[in-house]
Amino acid sequence: MPLFMDVHTMDGTVGLDDVAQAHQADLRVQATHGVNYQRYWVDEQNGKIFCLVEAPDAAAAAQVHREAHGLVADEIWPVAEGE
Amino acid sequence: MPLFMDVHTMDGTVGLDDVAQAHQADLRVQATHGVNYQRYWVDEQNGKIFCLVEAPDAAAAAQVHREAHGLVADEIWPVAEGE
Repeated sequence: MPLFMDVHTMDGTVGLDDVAQAHQADLRVQATHGVNYQRYWVDEQNGKIFCLVEAPDAAAAAQVHREAHGLVADEIWPVAEGE
Repeated sequence: MPLFMDVHTMDGTVGLDDVAQAHQADLRVQATHGVNYQRYWVDEQNGKIFCLVEAPDAAAAAQVHREAHGLVADEIWPVAEGE
């Protein structure tokens, strides 16, 4: 399954707890789209969020975010993990 | 130890093997700076690289890249990993 890193750039700060709740919402929705949000990292002060996600394609990953909480990423990059 | 996600935006494509060699160079240099480059992800076509790194501060992480291969990241963000 293709792997992606998405990048959210929020307007202002973002709380780790808020992102955790959004992630839980993703987990509840993702299976129907064949998507797997694996890990995520948050810069609370700068409002930056990175999500590592397996998905059939970038659109499916975005659709899960859209349905789960509406915060679609600003960028999404198809990546390979290095050894 | 603080955790960071850095982002390299290369001019054109980048090869996974080249990034793997650069990562190995980081591993050889990092200990003296108390830095630990943990994982990295590469978008070969778009020339994007994401490095997850533990470091005393962002400058130390950048110094390892500088000494190891000269490819200092374009962005570096202090992050917390979500649960």
